[in-house]
Amino acid sequence: MAMVCLSDFEAYAKKYLPKIAWDYFAAGADDCTTRDENILAYKRIRFRPHMLRDVSMMDIRTKILGSEISFPVGIAPTGFHQLAWPDGEKSTARAARAMNTCYIASTYSTCTLEEISAAAPGGLRWFQLYIHRNRAASQQLVRRAEALGFQGLVLTADLPYTGKRRDDVRNGFRLPPHMKVKNLERAFEVCKMSPSFHSLRWHYGLPPNSLDPSVTWNDIYWLRSLTRLPIIIKGILTREDAELAVKHGVQGIIVSNHGGRQLDEVPATIDALVEVVEAVQGRVEVYVDGGIRKGSDVLKALALGAKCVFIGRPALWGLAYKGEEGLQDVLRILQDEFRLSMALAGCASVSEIGQHLVQFSKL
Amino acid sequence: MAMVCLSDFEAYAKKYLPKIAWDYFAAGADDCTTRDENILAYKRIRFRPHMLRDVSMMDIRTKILGSEISFPVGIAPTGFHQLAWPDGEKSTARAARAMNTCYIASTYSTCTLEEISAAAPGGLRWFQLYIHRNRAASQQLVRRAEALGFQGLVLTADLPYTGKRRDDVRNGFRLPPHMKVKNLERAFEVCKMSPSFHSLRWHYGLPPNSLDPSVTWNDIYWLRSLTRLPIIIKGILTREDAELAVKHGVQGIIVSNHGGRQLDEVPATIDALVEVVEAVQGRVEVYVDGGIRKGSDVLKALALGAKCVFIGRPALWGLAYKGEEGLQDVLRILQDEFRLSMALAGCASVSEIGQHLVQFSKL
Amino acid sequence: MAMVCLSDFEAYAKKYLPKIAWDYFAAGADDCTTRDENILAYKRIRFRPHMLRDVSMMDIRTKILGSEISFPVGIAPTGFHQLAWPDGEKSTARAARAMNTCYIASTYSTCTLEEISAAAPGGLRWFQLYIHRNRAASQQLVRRAEALGFQGLVLTADLPYTGKRRDDVRNGFRLPPHMKVKNLERAFEVCKMSPSFHSLRWHYGLPPNSLDPSVTWNDIYWLRSLTRLPIIIKGILTREDAELAVKHGVQGIIVSNHGGRQLDEVPATIDALVEVVEAVQGRVEVYVDGGIRKGSDVLKALALGAKCVFIGRPALWGLAYKGEEGLQDVLRILQDEFRLSMALAGCASVSEIGQHLVQFSKL
Amino acid sequence: MAMVCLSDFEAYAKKYLPKIAWDYFAAGADDCTTRDENILAYKRIRFRPHMLRDVSMMDIRTKILGSEISFPVGIAPTGFHQLAWPDGEKSTARAARAMNTCYIASTYSTCTLEEISAAAPGGLRWFQLYIHRNRAASQQLVRRAEALGFQGLVLTADLPYTGKRRDDVRNGFRLPPHMKVKNLERAFEVCKMSPSFHSLRWHYGLPPNSLDPSVTWNDIYWLRSLTRLPIIIKGILTREDAELAVKHGVQGIIVSNHGGRQLDEVPATIDALVEVVEAVQGRVEVYVDGGIRKGSDVLKALALGAKCVFIGRPALWGLAYKGEEGLQDVLRILQDEFRLSMALAGCASVSEIGQHLVQFSKL
Repeated sequence: MAMVCLSDFEAYAKKYLPKIAWDYFAAGADDCTTRDENILAYKRIRFRPHMLRDVSMMDIRTKILGSEISFPVGIAPTGFHQLAWPDGEKSTARAARAMNTCYIASTYSTCTLEEISAAAPGGLRWFQLYIHRNRAASQQLVRRAEALGFQGLVLTADLPYTGKRRDDVRNGFRLPPHMKVKNLERAFEVCKMSPSFHSLRWHYGLPPNSLDPSVTWNDIYWLRSLTRLPIIIKGILTREDAELAVKHGVQGIIVSNHGGRQLDEVPATIDALVEVVEAVQGRVEVYVDGGIRKGSDVLKALALGAKCVFIGRPALWGLAYKGEEGLQDVLRILQDEFRLSMALAGCASVSEIGQHLVQFSKL
Repeated sequence: MAMVCLSDFEAYAKKYLPKIAWDYFAAGADDCTTRDENILAYKRIRFRPHMLRDVSMMDIRTKILGSEISFPVGIAPTGFHQLAWPDGEKSTARAARAMNTCYIASTYSTCTLEEISAAAPGGLRWFQLYIHRNRAASQQLVRRAEALGFQGLVLTADLPYTGKRRDDVRNGFRLPPHMKVKNLERAFEVCKMSPSFHSLRWHYGLPPNSLDPSVTWNDIYWLRSLTRLPIIIKGILTREDAELAVKHGVQGIIVSNHGGRQLDEVPATIDALVEVVEAVQGRVEVYVDGGIRKGSDVLKALALGAKCVFIGRPALWGLAYKGEEGLQDVLRILQDEFRLSMALAGCASVSEIGQHLVQFSKL
Repeated sequence: MAMVCLSDFEAYAKKYLPKIAWDYFAAGADDCTTRDENILAYKRIRFRPHMLRDVSMMDIRTKILGSEISFPVGIAPTGFHQLAWPDGEKSTARAARAMNTCYIASTYSTCTLEEISAAAPGGLRWFQLYIHRNRAASQQLVRRAEALGFQGLVLTADLPYTGKRRDDVRNGFRLPPHMKVKNLERAFEVCKMSPSFHSLRWHYGLPPNSLDPSVTWNDIYWLRSLTRLPIIIKGILTREDAELAVKHGVQGIIVSNHGGRQLDEVPATIDALVEVVEAVQGRVEVYVDGGIRKGSDVLKALALGAKCVFIGRPALWGLAYKGEEGLQDVLRILQDEFRLSMALAGCASVSEIGQHLVQFSKL
Repeated sequence: MAMVCLSDFEAYAKKYLPKIAWDYFAAGADDCTTRDENILAYKRIRFRPHMLRDVSMMDIRTKILGSEISFPVGIAPTGFHQLAWPDGEKSTARAARAMNTCYIASTYSTCTLEEISAAAPGGLRWFQLYIHRNRAASQQLVRRAEALGFQGLVLTADLPYTGKRRDDVRNGFRLPPHMKVKNLERAFEVCKMSPSFHSLRWHYGLPPNSLDPSVTWNDIYWLRSLTRLPIIIKGILTREDAELAVKHGVQGIIVSNHGGRQLDEVPATIDALVEVVEAVQGRVEVYVDGGIRKGSDVLKALALGAKCVFIGRPALWGLAYKGEEGLQDVLRILQDEFRLSMALAGCASVSEIGQHLVQFSKL
């Protein structure tokens, strides 16, 4: 079967991954409304293409926080890549470096940060952090990431508790015994069980209640004190929070709803992007993840003010297809589609992309 | 099969209840448009979640008419619980007490008020009243309820006649011989048949025409003269009627369309809630029923101004699953989901919930 | 099978009528968009019901052009009733009289006006007219109708040519040999074929090109000169035409799109009603046909300003079920549903129905 | 099977064409959203028909750039007609002449311009041009077309690169060996492969990269210098580009999105037509293609300001059905439907068609 577009990789992954792994990657919270809305919302945006521009020389490179990437698509932080491919995050790191783009490695990796770094020396990488009740563990992670040459610290803000993903509960999802949340091994004592969530016992490989739900905006200052890395906050959906993020000194915002896996029925990220960009007024870089399935989706996100997008599930489908090579295929298709969309819309370089290229459909 | 969310209980009830009972509980009037809209309307509301609030200590308790309940979900009045579980309303009362919430017992119970009280002494209960042509029967019910310690009187305002539920007509629905509308036994002589509704002969266990379609707002004063209990009016859908309710001295309003079983194609209750809350301006408490299927629906209703919601069909599904225990399961799932939704939206207590949390989707 | 609502009759007719007859009655023009929109548009209207009104005494009678009918639903003009039931329009006339409502007999009846009159003496009837190229034939019809006691003349304005109903073309629809357009027998010589419509040869029992496509508003004056009957114009969809109708002295307007059988993709009649009522400002009576399937649809039409509605296909389904008796069943169900809807909306008489009862859904 | 409407021809073509040819004609870019939107957008437009106009004498002729055609429907430029019928574009030319309308012959014809001219001498034809990197080849084509009596030059502006049509990639679409892009034989050396599009190797019978993506508005002046033919620009979707087209001296604009085959998720052409017509203000003629499936679609396009429409896929279906004769059938059905729609809307001639005839549906 020819792999022509990203949904070919999705179909492959659905067919060949173990059901429990597919379900885990595919899961959305509750009714999966937001997960699906992330995609549908892109379909409601229409292009206003301009004809007869010279698009013979296409330049699709961009920069994020000063680093050049080959095109404005990076790898979003997702957990447990070994569920998709034996080499796990090492393959992800290699593919990202091969395609000259940015990979945000997750706290919940099945390889250590050290293994990831060693697999693809010199690649552009950011590290995604959850803050745990055990603050020392989090602090140690930040220091390791900085020492290993990670160039950004992504704080996930939308997971004080894990969202309710019904299929994972039904499947009794847990990591297979030979996989581990390696970055956090031995970091935790068993925490006191909270009495209030007793019927929701999904914990994804960590002791229940290890995450710290008391984190507030002031903890940005604490992170700031730990590291000189730029801090990017992930999970912002409103202008109010965007304003707070800027005020607390972050360098970037990832508009994200965690792939629709946390609070269901929040807005699609491409819709939330508009108000965040408007609030931020260029003071920090804004990125977006969720729902990207075609190169033209990338063009829409950039037209609405994103500096770069990040892909989550499609990267996992690529891994599931052929590991590092499969992920490169996914990125290459997105790259070709993005370049073609730009050309057909009349833009020869990323700097020509602007809001004039899109309008929201009335339907 | 794991019971993970409320639709699992629905599927169970549909599979195991006798068809005639399932159809009776599921029925909506005419085309069932409003029954289904009650659910769909929730899906059109989007959250605006706020991140990085301290949600480590969650307090989901609230008060209705001065009584504390463990979380803002009570049991709406529905009839004939023995159709769902042998112990009928006695099980309902026990489950509500166990979960420390409010149960509104229906006039059309298959247990007497006395049996209900005895089954769960000390539970918070309100009594739902239909006014019959035989006013003495209604008066006697009110007095019994008050004497038994019921703490509120809920007047159903939307049933001067019974709505047209096609499946009940097709099934020739009637109570099985061993079940009775026990609260009203011997209260009625056979009334004169009205000549005008001769092709609509569904009467749900009571003599035709026993309900009084001449009830008006002035009858609130009559009720007031019978009891010191707070009066809550159920079935209000417009600002005009909300205004009248306040003017006639009720203590609470339940925004309800009778689960879509009366006039079809009235608005979804969550949509009607908005205008009722606006009209009432806090002068009385406002509640809502209809369409609640997830803890996040409760959060939406509270964000739009409801003090508490009441569940109808989901309670019956719980009973059908495992009686008192099954209903507790349903309530516990709603409780966990509500708490989690609050936390993910950035609220640590019910008092932090407000209209800023939601917006209506354009689609 | 119990006949509970109008769609039960539809299902029966679809099952038992010969396909060619069912297709003819069911047909809409082109893609049948407007035929289906007529129904869907009702579903987008929401009720604003008012509670606690005294609805113990219900009065659903109304008057059209001074004649009282038992409830505001009459029989719209449709052709070829013998396709549905052997006695054809004679059964229709008897059922309408039995239910004390108005029957608009079509030019395209399979019984003569004389037979219709004789079948149900004293019934309230209007006569529907097409103007033919052979004006003498039309004039003779008008005179016969008036002499037979028909009390209104309904001029169909939307059929200068017959709409394109694909199924009729595929079926090669024509009347069976034993049925005739009896009112027009021997009225026509064979007209000259128009060269321009040669690929559209469906003519429904009359010589091609017998209808006069040169009719204009001035022909209202010609009709006026022929008869003292009130003239009702049928097929108006815009405020501009409503204004012209009033200006040319008609007594009534039927907002109609011919059941979606003429120009496809015109508005649903209930939507067009709003602008016609607004334009007419009470100067003449306004009626509506198309899409009425429930008693609550009648209530919506009246709330939006119609004096009465007319049913087309549902009457034919009733005939197909059991002739005169089946049509009475259909009317009785509509009557019961209408009365119940009124009561549940808080109206005890037709005079209490008004625009405050409805709102257009945003979706 | 009776051929009653255009979708009958579509069904025939889908059944009898080789899959690879059907897929090629049916293809849209990416998710085919715009391809389908082209059709759906027509369904959202409602007619405001006017009754009782004299429509006995119908005149449906119009003029485009001074030439009279029998009705406002021409043949849009599409490639490779031999895939549909052995005689290819020769049949198309004959059918267009027989129906007295305009045929826009494509650069990508499988017959030469000379063969097309010889097949139907005296027919009204325009020539559609792509500008190639080999400018001499394009210049030669323009000169040949002018010499052969083509009366207009249509520059396609929306194809600097070919859109991504997934099915063509999956099928490995290429012309069968016995078919050639005859107009361009021997015009090309093999061009240097562009390194940037290496995974998108669909080229439709021409060497990769033969088209010139550096074409700009100034090339209109270059074309102007080559020929005295009127220049029509095809592929405009925005007011900005419409303004530029007028400014650069074109004689006509075809609002087109290439049948949804280039950039997916641009607006439907009938929606884009509105803004283009508004921008142009009558300074040049405006036409539209895409989504025309019924005569009433033509009426809508004219009501919104198009001077004429062009059909693409339906012409190919007609060819696939019976060559020249099948295409005439398609045109004749559209003609009859257009005339009937006009009459039912109350217009006796094309000059009476105006914006008052339509409104956009709210849904």
